Amino acid sequence: MQNDVSVFEVGPRDGLQNESVLLPVEQKVALIHKLVDGGLKHVEIGSFVHPKWVPQMADTDEVARTIEKKPGVAYWALVPNMRGLERAIDAGIKHVAFFMSSSETHNQKNINRSISESLVAMEELFKLALSEKLQIRAYISTVFGCPFEGEVDFDRVLKIGDRLLELGAQQISLGDTTGMGRPLQVQEGSKRAVERWDSDRVALHLHDTSGLGQTNAFAGYLSGIRAFDSSVGGLGGCPYAPGAPGNLATQTLVNLLESLGRPTGISRDSLRETTQWLEDDIGFNLTQRRSL
Amino acid sequence: MQNDVSVFEVGPRDGLQNESVLLPVEQKVALIHKLVDGGLKHVEIGSFVHPKWVPQMADTDEVARTIEKKPGVAYWALVPNMRGLERAIDAGIKHVAFFMSSSETHNQKNINRSISESLVAMEELFKLALSEKLQIRAYISTVFGCPFEGEVDFDRVLKIGDRLLELGAQQISLGDTTGMGRPLQVQEGSKRAVERWDSDRVALHLHDTSGLGQTNAFAGYLSGIRAFDSSVGGLGGCPYAPGAPGNLATQTLVNLLESLGRPTGISRDSLRETTQWLEDDIGFNLTQRRSL
Repeated sequence: MQNDVSVFEVGPRDGLQNESVLLPVEQKVALIHKLVDGGLKHVEIGSFVHPKWVPQMADTDEVARTIEKKPGVAYWALVPNMRGLERAIDAGIKHVAFFMSSSETHNQKNINRSISESLVAMEELFKLALSEKLQIRAYISTVFGCPFEGEVDFDRVLKIGDRLLELGAQQISLGDTTGMGRPLQVQEGSKRAVERWDSDRVALHLHDTSGLGQTNAFAGYLSGIRAFDSSVGGLGGCPYAPGAPGNLATQTLVNLLESLGRPTGISRDSLRETTQWLEDDIGFNLTQRRSL
Repeated sequence: MQNDVSVFEVGPRDGLQNESVLLPVEQKVALIHKLVDGGLKHVEIGSFVHPKWVPQMADTDEVARTIEKKPGVAYWALVPNMRGLERAIDAGIKHVAFFMSSSETHNQKNINRSISESLVAMEELFKLALSEKLQIRAYISTVFGCPFEGEVDFDRVLKIGDRLLELGAQQISLGDTTGMGRPLQVQEGSKRAVERWDSDRVALHLHDTSGLGQTNAFAGYLSGIRAFDSSVGGLGGCPYAPGAPGNLATQTLVNLLESLGRPTGISRDSLRETTQWLEDDIGFNLTQRRSL
């Protein structure tokens, strides 16, 4: 991971998994190719979650095998458990992202485990991933608020992050899973995380559900955050707020980073074209959804 | 003007003057009433510019006479010259806003005067306004960039502001007229202005043309700005970028201020309803325009 700003494109995973439309493999592959052609160096291409839970991601093995991999690009996949990790390894994935929540209730509902059980499970997963020389990212969800519990204690977030880094994660992605984060809160949390772990070991995963995504990204930037997750065209809604925007749109993020004097190497024209393609050829309605 | 956050609604003036649709007096009056009913305490109701230049504002006299004025609400009007000021006084206006640019070229093209000529003209205007016990606001345009000159020297902005305050303006509104401002630049300029003049004597007038309006508002807030101009639904496009967003939308601003723990007393539901009314009954297409 670079020292300058990084953009992690999560559209093909976090985006698509929150859309009701199921894309065939060739369209997913086309989307990933377009993103990489547009200059993205980190693309999360899918997840190895059980298809019963996330049918949108059932064919990630095939997607991973079909894409043409460009040197210098990291093709990430989300992995929930040992079975998923084995599938990822079989499919030739070199970059894996694990996830857990900083809210007990959210973790229980989402993963069916307590936070401490999740941390125990991570130990095994990371061990195998490291023995296979995979790069490891760890998402911590709901760090700025949980739809079930409300406020989340940021000390707990930091302790979970400490443990995940200790176990071998290269980067923690702090997830504002439902877009509840407020700018001053994001600024403060980011400051604590960056001071504790260092800029290159922490990313912000922001959602625009409350219409504060870009401003929260700026708040994080001011605290030293240099890696951000986003989704082309804001692909992906919010499971807790139907019709609302989901992930921060990659073009909104790139626009911000450029305005801060941080070129990303990502073509905004290309992002616009890919968004147009998602709307015209696949049938998503992304432009409407982004407005407050 | 209060010490807490203030929102200056400029939709009926800066918004409508940049729309090609001409509204009849009764619709303008209805818009102003809706805004005040929604909790806005500062509304710019129109301008007394010559109708040859801004036909959208030809009937501001009648608008000013027709609106029902609520106590505690300031009904502002924009005034370009002595003739306009006399019309404003005749129409019973108690709050006047004057304007000039911090870019020589923009001032010349917009007002047909040099900056120093504008400052001389202000002297006369302010004198009459003060003798009539009017409240005075002064807009300085293009402070974060000029479409003709590019970068604008912020020292010049500060010197113009000094003079306007000295002449009797109660507040300077720093105008990012075409939305060229970048967050770190807005943060720095706002800091200098607040340190020099104090929070209650400076406002930010932001446009969302580059998709950075809310983030720039946050940047200004971090530097102590507590007064912001905005337009309901983002009414008003950008004369230099057809189809692009214009003024920062009032709901986007109110959303931000609330997320910063600064309640505004403005109902977001009401703003949404007024925007819907502007779209359905008047025929504006505001939602589309706000997206990047």
